[in-house]
Amino acid sequence: MLRRSKFYLILVLAFSPLVTLASAAAAEPSAHSIGVVFLWLAIILLAAKLASLVERFGQPAVLGELVIGVLLGNLYLLGIHWLEPLRTSELISFLAEFGVVILLFQIGLESNIAQMKKVGVRALLVAILGVVAPFLLGTFVVGPWLIPGQEFNAYLFLGATLTATSVGITARVFKDLGKLKTNEAQIVLGAAVIDDVLGLIILAVVSAIVTLGSVSFAGIALITLKALGFLVGAIVLGSFSAPYLGHWFSKIHSGIGMKFTLALSFGLILAYLAEQIGLAPIVGAFAAGLVLDPVHFRYFKNNQTIEDLHELAASQSDELKIKIMAAAEHNSHRQIEELIEPLAFFLVPIFFVMTGFNVDLRILADLPVLGIALAVSVAAFVGKLVAGLAAGPVNKWVVGIGMIPRGEVGLIFAMIGKNLGVVDDRLFSIIVIMVILSTLLTPPILTVLLKRS
Amino acid sequence: MLRRSKFYLILVLAFSPLVTLASAAAAEPSAHSIGVVFLWLAIILLAAKLASLVERFGQPAVLGELVIGVLLGNLYLLGIHWLEPLRTSELISFLAEFGVVILLFQIGLESNIAQMKKVGVRALLVAILGVVAPFLLGTFVVGPWLIPGQEFNAYLFLGATLTATSVGITARVFKDLGKLKTNEAQIVLGAAVIDDVLGLIILAVVSAIVTLGSVSFAGIALITLKALGFLVGAIVLGSFSAPYLGHWFSKIHSGIGMKFTLALSFGLILAYLAEQIGLAPIVGAFAAGLVLDPVHFRYFKNNQTIEDLHELAASQSDELKIKIMAAAEHNSHRQIEELIEPLAFFLVPIFFVMTGFNVDLRILADLPVLGIALAVSVAAFVGKLVAGLAAGPVNKWVVGIGMIPRGEVGLIFAMIGKNLGVVDDRLFSIIVIMVILSTLLTPPILTVLLKRS
Repeated sequence: MLRRSKFYLILVLAFSPLVTLASAAAAEPSAHSIGVVFLWLAIILLAAKLASLVERFGQPAVLGELVIGVLLGNLYLLGIHWLEPLRTSELISFLAEFGVVILLFQIGLESNIAQMKKVGVRALLVAILGVVAPFLLGTFVVGPWLIPGQEFNAYLFLGATLTATSVGITARVFKDLGKLKTNEAQIVLGAAVIDDVLGLIILAVVSAIVTLGSVSFAGIALITLKALGFLVGAIVLGSFSAPYLGHWFSKIHSGIGMKFTLALSFGLILAYLAEQIGLAPIVGAFAAGLVLDPVHFRYFKNNQTIEDLHELAASQSDELKIKIMAAAEHNSHRQIEELIEPLAFFLVPIFFVMTGFNVDLRILADLPVLGIALAVSVAAFVGKLVAGLAAGPVNKWVVGIGMIPRGEVGLIFAMIGKNLGVVDDRLFSIIVIMVILSTLLTPPILTVLLKRS
Repeated sequence: MLRRSKFYLILVLAFSPLVTLASAAAAEPSAHSIGVVFLWLAIILLAAKLASLVERFGQPAVLGELVIGVLLGNLYLLGIHWLEPLRTSELISFLAEFGVVILLFQIGLESNIAQMKKVGVRALLVAILGVVAPFLLGTFVVGPWLIPGQEFNAYLFLGATLTATSVGITARVFKDLGKLKTNEAQIVLGAAVIDDVLGLIILAVVSAIVTLGSVSFAGIALITLKALGFLVGAIVLGSFSAPYLGHWFSKIHSGIGMKFTLALSFGLILAYLAEQIGLAPIVGAFAAGLVLDPVHFRYFKNNQTIEDLHELAASQSDELKIKIMAAAEHNSHRQIEELIEPLAFFLVPIFFVMTGFNVDLRILADLPVLGIALAVSVAAFVGKLVAGLAAGPVNKWVVGIGMIPRGEVGLIFAMIGKNLGVVDDRLFSIIVIMVILSTLLTPPILTVLLKRS
């Protein structure tokens, strides 16, 4: 099963094979107090905000967070080891993973089902083409051609690795630039969700071929059904039950605390269920956000500012009353997002700074490996750009580039291949570099494209 | 040194000596995935909100959170073991501790230095009397009289345990009932901070007597100076530097994300520094909140609602413009609090539910121990009620009751005594019951008093 819960553990293992043992030995799990974790968090948050200076150069904040993360994570090369315990801290990994869950929940809240449906078929096509093209390229072209002498199963895993899509990076770029509502963004989000389901299937198939030499179609069908059942169930049941839940809980308490708790818990539970099915928690959180609608919270109180507005409106002329009430209404609709936003201010930067933190720059110093990795990365880029062709009458380049980041999903594939003895250390390094490049190069390229269009 | 970072570990050890080993064995640290932690969090948050039904009966929400925590934590008595891994989860302990830090930060933000100064002398008197009276009662009266046959050092530790004040519970009650701005609340808050410094000194003295048989006054003076230096330094340096920090960071970015990050990081760093000195992280967080003032954030943007208000105001008559701007101004000042609030919605209930969770009801079933514990608890209550007498022209009962909860600080004293071989298992159980009673009985009593006055 594809589990991303150990994501950071794997990232650490993958991005810094050489330092892992050393730092794990240096940092016993309980050697630092809770106060030190507070200090780490302050450093991560302030560094992330300092890095938002990249916005002055027209770049999205997420790029700054990744870059400052890379800098902090490679301070050890200068002999500064003070931050090394961050690498193995379960607390920080958890908060980072929580961060990307909140991000996708937020993005789900800002998206709506109607628009997702409108682009549904195109998102499906993009997802399928985005899986097939890189898989064929990796397994039959780039693998045998650039890394000769491996068994076929190794090429199979390389191909599988190239199929992944990690939606966090792209979603942040769209969000940072205020382009989440565009058709391109909706297609990429939809395709990424579908890609996660396809990823589950591919992993099951590839693992079966490597370990058993054959594929059980019944088993594959079951995995597929469970994943699709979850997605359809979450959206259909969620849409039906959310209004009743909202009404029922508002009877217990109608304050904004209850509103916040209800929304957040809904996201957390769907993230949990997604993980239980074998999907990424972020897919569940995104589905939860998609289902939740301001209307489900109409029984709850508004925040103080909006109550003040209502009070002010009551004593005014009719014309002005309408204006003020409209402003209040407008803000009331933004409220769940506003309540979740501070949580995102806190957690989301941790995810991106730590993603950068776990990039070990030394891996880029092995020139022969780097050369092959660059060529594999080109294949990784081309494979997803091809997928963009299925996006219909939108900016196909934006969709294609948006699908490029591989992130943790690709690494999980590679790790499983490594554990099965199919992926050797060199191939593993090549995959890690491909993942790094696809993660770090996407934000600036996407930004240029989005600003031009 | 008095370190509360391992607070929950100690609570677990203290409140449930019998189940700890069993549950630790059942729940390996990494046996649960991140998704399961999401589910736990949703359960804790929803349970806390369900428990806010106690407000219907005029009780503060915090009582509901404690009680639902006790229920969840003792489900194992009914053979339901599903939540047991919560007891040993480092993640949940961290989030709980973070919760009480955020609570005190929030309360610091809502308090202001001027009012604290006004009640400073009385808070000092309350703190001193609240340490001396219970110490004398415990060491020379209740100990030798109710638990005869122990060596003097055991009574010394009992006395020391009774001096602690755990401000989280009381602060939440004042907050839930909207009484934070009263002189009573400010005196209790001030006294609790001073009590934490006194606690450091007492612990150093008592430990020295037990281990060395004598006291080094130079060592005690150093500890005292460090603690006082931190408090004065945090408030003086903080007050001077905050405006400049705010101005400087607003130049990097003036969005509400930066405002939130700056405020939160300031709180986190002071919590860290407090812990480094040997004080509780909550003392640092409270000091940070006290120092931060809306005026330090004047260079930052307001949130959308307030910007809408300004826009609306611009097109109105002068009289109305003033009204609308006043509403906007009012809300702008509440903004840092509003940005921190959702984080508190998320984290604070975790602290109180888990505090209840770690109350092992079976410890109350040992009747002879329970009887002595009740008598010791009476002494614990009386000792702090006496302290209330020094509160000056306010409701002295409110101040006295407000000082009663012992919480984690008392337990840490007891644990150290146990580790030094001075406090035996029976005395330890007695102290644990006293802590439970002082924690659970304070909210309803304080509520009755506050509603009457």
